[in-house]
Amino acid sequence: GAFHGRTFGALTTTHSKPIHKLDIPAFDWPIASFPIYKYPLEEFKTENEAEDRRCLEEVQCLIEQRENTGKDVAGVVIEPIQCEGGDHHPSTNFMQKLQAITKKADVGFLVDEVQTGCGSTGKMWCHEHYHLDGPPDIVTFSKKMLTGGFYLSKKYRPKQGYRVFNTWMGDPGKMLLLEAVLQTIKTENLLDNVTKTGNHLLKGLEDLQARYPQYLNSARGLGFIVSVNCFTALRRDKFMHKLRKRGVHVGGCGVDVLRLRPALNFTQHHADILLDSLKSVLAEEAG
Amino acid sequence: GAFHGRTFGALTTTHSKPIHKLDIPAFDWPIASFPIYKYPLEEFKTENEAEDRRCLEEVQCLIEQRENTGKDVAGVVIEPIQCEGGDHHPSTNFMQKLQAITKKADVGFLVDEVQTGCGSTGKMWCHEHYHLDGPPDIVTFSKKMLTGGFYLSKKYRPKQGYRVFNTWMGDPGKMLLLEAVLQTIKTENLLDNVTKTGNHLLKGLEDLQARYPQYLNSARGLGFIVSVNCFTALRRDKFMHKLRKRGVHVGGCGVDVLRLRPALNFTQHHADILLDSLKSVLAEEAG
Repeated sequence: GAFHGRTFGALTTTHSKPIHKLDIPAFDWPIASFPIYKYPLEEFKTENEAEDRRCLEEVQCLIEQRENTGKDVAGVVIEPIQCEGGDHHPSTNFMQKLQAITKKADVGFLVDEVQTGCGSTGKMWCHEHYHLDGPPDIVTFSKKMLTGGFYLSKKYRPKQGYRVFNTWMGDPGKMLLLEAVLQTIKTENLLDNVTKTGNHLLKGLEDLQARYPQYLNSARGLGFIVSVNCFTALRRDKFMHKLRKRGVHVGGCGVDVLRLRPALNFTQHHADILLDSLKSVLAEEAG
Repeated sequence: GAFHGRTFGALTTTHSKPIHKLDIPAFDWPIASFPIYKYPLEEFKTENEAEDRRCLEEVQCLIEQRENTGKDVAGVVIEPIQCEGGDHHPSTNFMQKLQAITKKADVGFLVDEVQTGCGSTGKMWCHEHYHLDGPPDIVTFSKKMLTGGFYLSKKYRPKQGYRVFNTWMGDPGKMLLLEAVLQTIKTENLLDNVTKTGNHLLKGLEDLQARYPQYLNSARGLGFIVSVNCFTALRRDKFMHKLRKRGVHVGGCGVDVLRLRPALNFTQHHADILLDSLKSVLAEEAG
């Protein structure tokens, strides 16, 4: 379910909606499973640990397979929360062990923070939540940073800086806008707001899920990357539609996931409006 | 020598500097020769017509080869003046016959106007100079249009508009800037300036070339896409360096090409400063 963009290289890496890849040539780059947990997490500890092991073994196996056929492995690309694919949150254990595998195999560890970066999780970068053994080798960003780019460790710096240059890099107009965004995040304590309001929103979803277990399950969130499953795509779309009629615009991802992606200045007051609207949609559905 | 950008698909199409392609995976997309003429054009009519035929036959042959091995041919990509590769100007005959080949084979005809577009040749789009039989199927633009994008004929419009969407499309900040650029081109008659000043600049280069045939040859230009060959890369670089010391910043392309790319508001006065500087560099070189 990974979505990494629409250029050819990005599309090869992308595995979200088939429509993005249809008719488009792609490279022979393998894909490993992203862990899909059972919720609530504390009830399914054994199952979820087994899921971590399964996915990590798959990565290890793919690296070995490639190396055995004489192909160099450049690296592993992962979203620190798989977003388009269905808002799948990896465990800290998974992220740490995945990084350890890349270090042992001496291949790059690239974390795609296009959706998760720039404060959405209550930290500037989502990967900071996983207490990794050192930073990722490469972190990609875009959209919320108002420009596309990446951070990289010294090891991955090309000998000729010119090789990663393109026309839009350091676009001064975008830099001015980004400076204002970063300043606003700081002066208005928006990261704190994301953490507090995100917790409040998730708590609200958990309450609604307890009350309507026939409609909602697997509520999960980290800051403002918040979502809940609706059992079927049809029901998810119905909820989205009804919420929109009530003035609440939410999106979908994966198959049956209703996902919330508030702006950083979304407050507890806004969260309560959203939760009330969802509550009345659910009450209506329950008849 | 074609340069079409730095994403994987663009890099597959690009054939300018090897450094751009080193270590980068690419698709199996063939490349045909771009016509390289002998100058002055009117002295080498027979040779240059033969060059057109050679290059057109190569394109025809590549299309047939692919189709014979059961591979669909999507289209032909060309710069209407090959820029990074050495400022090679195709003849009107070549461009018209190339388009005819694509029409007959029912494959797309994509004209990459990233360097040549937005007024540089005295017309908004360089391909307008060739009196083609209808517009190209796709025209790509970037940089000078302050945003990346393409125009396409109805035939190539995807069924789902969403498939060609990306985050930066219609970026409002860039649209405002572009509007001002287009307005300035219009109110200040910059396209006329490009044509007039471009002719003056080319005439000046031709005069210098007649005076110093041991240093300069093959002066050519269309509006502000103007260049001259210097016989060797070493001499070209020396001229560039000496011009820079005199406050004139010019670039190079191809192997031995000194290329001029003035801004649209470059006037005859500026052209004379440039020509005087080049003249004194040549006089110094001649000792």
